[in-house]
Amino acid sequence: MKKLRIAIAQINPTVGDFEGNTRKIIEYIDKAKGYGSDIVAFPELAITGYPPEDLLLKPQFIKDNIEALKRVQDETEGITAIVGFVDRKDDIFNAAAIIHDKAIIDVYHKMYLPNYGVFDEYRYFQVGTRYPIYQIDNVFFGVNICEDIWYPDGPTRVQALAGAEVIININASPYHIGKSAFRERMLSTRASDSTVVVAYINTVGGQDELVFDGHSLVIDEKGEIIARGKQFEEDLIIVDLDLEAVLMRRLHDPRRRQEVLAIEGAVEKIAIQAEKVEENFSLIPQRTNTILERMEEIYRALVLGTSDYVAKNNFKGVVIGLSGGVDSSLVAAIAVDAIGKENVTGIFMPSPYTSKESMEDTYEIAKNLGIKIIEVPIKGLFKTYLQSLEEEFKGLPPDATEENLQARIRGNILMAFSNKFGWLVLTTGNKSEMSVGYATLYGDMAGGFAVIKDVPKTMVYELCKWKNLKEWKTLIPERVLWKEPSAELKPDQKDTDTLPPYPVLDPILKAYVEEDRSFEEIMSLGCELECAQKVINMIDRSEYKRRQAPPGIKITPRAFGKDRRFPITNRYRSY
Amino acid sequence: MKKLRIAIAQINPTVGDFEGNTRKIIEYIDKAKGYGSDIVAFPELAITGYPPEDLLLKPQFIKDNIEALKRVQDETEGITAIVGFVDRKDDIFNAAAIIHDKAIIDVYHKMYLPNYGVFDEYRYFQVGTRYPIYQIDNVFFGVNICEDIWYPDGPTRVQALAGAEVIININASPYHIGKSAFRERMLSTRASDSTVVVAYINTVGGQDELVFDGHSLVIDEKGEIIARGKQFEEDLIIVDLDLEAVLMRRLHDPRRRQEVLAIEGAVEKIAIQAEKVEENFSLIPQRTNTILERMEEIYRALVLGTSDYVAKNNFKGVVIGLSGGVDSSLVAAIAVDAIGKENVTGIFMPSPYTSKESMEDTYEIAKNLGIKIIEVPIKGLFKTYLQSLEEEFKGLPPDATEENLQARIRGNILMAFSNKFGWLVLTTGNKSEMSVGYATLYGDMAGGFAVIKDVPKTMVYELCKWKNLKEWKTLIPERVLWKEPSAELKPDQKDTDTLPPYPVLDPILKAYVEEDRSFEEIMSLGCELECAQKVINMIDRSEYKRRQAPPGIKITPRAFGKDRRFPITNRYRSY
Repeated sequence: MKKLRIAIAQINPTVGDFEGNTRKIIEYIDKAKGYGSDIVAFPELAITGYPPEDLLLKPQFIKDNIEALKRVQDETEGITAIVGFVDRKDDIFNAAAIIHDKAIIDVYHKMYLPNYGVFDEYRYFQVGTRYPIYQIDNVFFGVNICEDIWYPDGPTRVQALAGAEVIININASPYHIGKSAFRERMLSTRASDSTVVVAYINTVGGQDELVFDGHSLVIDEKGEIIARGKQFEEDLIIVDLDLEAVLMRRLHDPRRRQEVLAIEGAVEKIAIQAEKVEENFSLIPQRTNTILERMEEIYRALVLGTSDYVAKNNFKGVVIGLSGGVDSSLVAAIAVDAIGKENVTGIFMPSPYTSKESMEDTYEIAKNLGIKIIEVPIKGLFKTYLQSLEEEFKGLPPDATEENLQARIRGNILMAFSNKFGWLVLTTGNKSEMSVGYATLYGDMAGGFAVIKDVPKTMVYELCKWKNLKEWKTLIPERVLWKEPSAELKPDQKDTDTLPPYPVLDPILKAYVEEDRSFEEIMSLGCELECAQKVINMIDRSEYKRRQAPPGIKITPRAFGKDRRFPITNRYRSY
Repeated sequence: MKKLRIAIAQINPTVGDFEGNTRKIIEYIDKAKGYGSDIVAFPELAITGYPPEDLLLKPQFIKDNIEALKRVQDETEGITAIVGFVDRKDDIFNAAAIIHDKAIIDVYHKMYLPNYGVFDEYRYFQVGTRYPIYQIDNVFFGVNICEDIWYPDGPTRVQALAGAEVIININASPYHIGKSAFRERMLSTRASDSTVVVAYINTVGGQDELVFDGHSLVIDEKGEIIARGKQFEEDLIIVDLDLEAVLMRRLHDPRRRQEVLAIEGAVEKIAIQAEKVEENFSLIPQRTNTILERMEEIYRALVLGTSDYVAKNNFKGVVIGLSGGVDSSLVAAIAVDAIGKENVTGIFMPSPYTSKESMEDTYEIAKNLGIKIIEVPIKGLFKTYLQSLEEEFKGLPPDATEENLQARIRGNILMAFSNKFGWLVLTTGNKSEMSVGYATLYGDMAGGFAVIKDVPKTMVYELCKWKNLKEWKTLIPERVLWKEPSAELKPDQKDTDTLPPYPVLDPILKAYVEEDRSFEEIMSLGCELECAQKVINMIDRSEYKRRQAPPGIKITPRAFGKDRRFPITNRYRSY
């Protein structure tokens, strides 16, 4: 009988934490042994965390990573472990060590290096050139890394044609909306195309702008998902594979014989001297968690991104400027789910233009969430600034200067609490504001982490409504959800004084920011000429603000930050 | 007689300004025609400006760039023009159009794409694979792009072996200290190695973090520099080449025959139907500007970076917080040289801890530079903040919170002037401070452009001294140069309360930040264990501040910003 027990260790490493990552890997190896697994597989660059960025340019970092791998190596008695690390030859490689019984059997080097979006792998790594496959007893398997499986004629295809019955594909694949479904479809096609079992291991956790969603998968040779790991949580998935089915199906594929000839000689076969686990086969129930529904998935991504940023950077708590608006309410709810209500403080900073409704809503949200709230009025400070500048600004009409001053006073107060108590300031700006620059630099943009910076305003509303439904209570008061959005920085101000309504704005932003659509294509969305021009102009001209914005969690296919690299000095106009 | 008149058009394009760039290119083509040039060569991506970054992902941008090239094409009657642009086939290429008499003769595609430091070319471009050479009458020349000439066995070598007597290498090569000498040495070696004349054309101008220094070169087949363009200015260099010498030298090279065989068939030869200019040959005097001395070179880089950031982003003037310290004094001097004293305003914002000396020095600097100065004391605002926070901070000792508050009040005041008058705020932090995070986010770090962010403190002093010598007067008062540096945010504060003296600090920073040295190597600089650990720890932990810093001018081999990409969430410690 051709069978294999594989353990998928979907762990949450921290970048640069060799001690912690190694400890965690060893702990999961022990657990996998406890389940009698033949193989335990860890994510891409599990040793270093992903992405290590320019830490990879430090020779000492590479050396320390290899020493960490050695410590893992010593704990592999009786099991085969696949561990992502940085290999060093004459250059460095994004690599997977295939370790058995305290010996490194082989090292696979990633062949397809992503260098788009948030990825910069050509900056660091040399390209791999080998397609090895490995043999344990009568089972053949191949190992490859992340992007390697995204190409139909990549190593998965070659290794499967050379006889691999299982492909272990290790990943650090960041989350964005819609990616889960795409990945499942693509991986299923790879499996059925090559009649091979695919074990897809993804890392989990937040790292600066990125959230890795886990959601590891085992897919059989027909393309059916037979196991699915948790989303946004660490997980260990044990799967028993019956590989007779692979051979059976391959015997019925007449084209395969021809194709095998084409890769003849391209693949090395390496034997691993291991005894396969024979007992209790298939007694472990396969587990296929269902996929979270859309809003919950997004919300969970935001929660994990926030909790990991706080924890991995050792903050004691967070502080949020609460305004009674929908953005700060959502951020506060996420923060409470991320780190617990006792670690979240809200600061309410009313100005002369703050409405009674905003005050009531702020206190109600704080009460509903069970967080502490502190009130610091800014009226006196605002007056003192105006007096200090009176002489220089004499005779000039009020403009954005006075609005920004209020936002910046609030920024300073939040930062004072941050400095005094060691709290991280969470900013509350959404993607719509970030896109058009409807935010004050050093004002409401002041803070360490921008939780919803990649969430369009219309989606902020959706998330609030979903959260209220989920909790079976109006955590975020109804009035917050239907009152007109306002920055409340001058009398009777509304967002629509400056911007088109968000349901009109957000599709333009998506087309321009995320999809690089031309002006004609944007006009075809049905907006007015002047409106489209104004919006695009605002986006182009606020790059300088975004450059100084805190990092925030990527949830769309294209976020700001590393994902969208625009010049500030830029005279290009699309219309 | 084998001869050629070549015009090197060292221009300053603006990213995305197709209209302006095209106009400038056509203007230089006309000038080159006026000098009877056979060939006029423009920098890499002259049409789009460099680097266009993610604008390259917009199909409309690529299309507009090709239309701009067509407008240039129409103005090439009677001359051969080499123009950098983005070519579009099934993918896009960093390309050079070889145009003659309104027809595109050929398009060369860059083969070596830089993807390190500030460069991300693999993110955008496909790699070129062709090595064409061109013939005008009896002269053969090759064209290649920037990095292509940095590889000894790259296209320069192949094209020269195939018969090219001149290599036209077009560039957008950013400045850093020491690069000029390295480039001259390397290019001379390429020329003599392959017995070929090298015409190296570099762009000039500031673009966000980068300054392109011009400094174009023509080097003869023996490796001797025969013409050198201006540094940090636009220039048109006309050079007459007598290419008999190339053939003569090649006839004396016995190894060459063997090597030519090896590249047989690799190169296409393309004829350009042109009549060479025959009159006035060598009547144009060759021009070899001398290289600026080190301090002047750095200063000029800072001036150009600043003036172009201001001009290309359409600012009306700049505003600088003057403290009487060496950093703000240098920034003010640079600003005056960049955009004229009438466009520079200094704001002096004394706190309760500001010394009498600082006040006197501030006014003296403003007087010496001839700039307007406005005084806005912050004592009242500071007091109002303390009162607003009194209740919440009750019983807690003063700490960095109160220091940061003062810096942030100043940040707000500067930004108010910026908002009210449309002035760009220049920040005054140096590289030493940026490295260790000795700066207040949203305080002294608040502003649009960080002029000396890549200048170590010890070099700030050197530059000030050089400037005083250069001007034959003490523009920056002597006391500013010898008094002990202090942030003046609490009584009797000195930088050395927190940091080692700058002559000790700066070498550690260079080793760690610019050179990625290990802890042992840093210790070998002779510093104390605790001091080295403390400094490295400060650098690692202040990445979050740098992420929100304004852009500034790269002058060292490794600046912050695009040049050094570190994770914020990072548990790696080098010691």
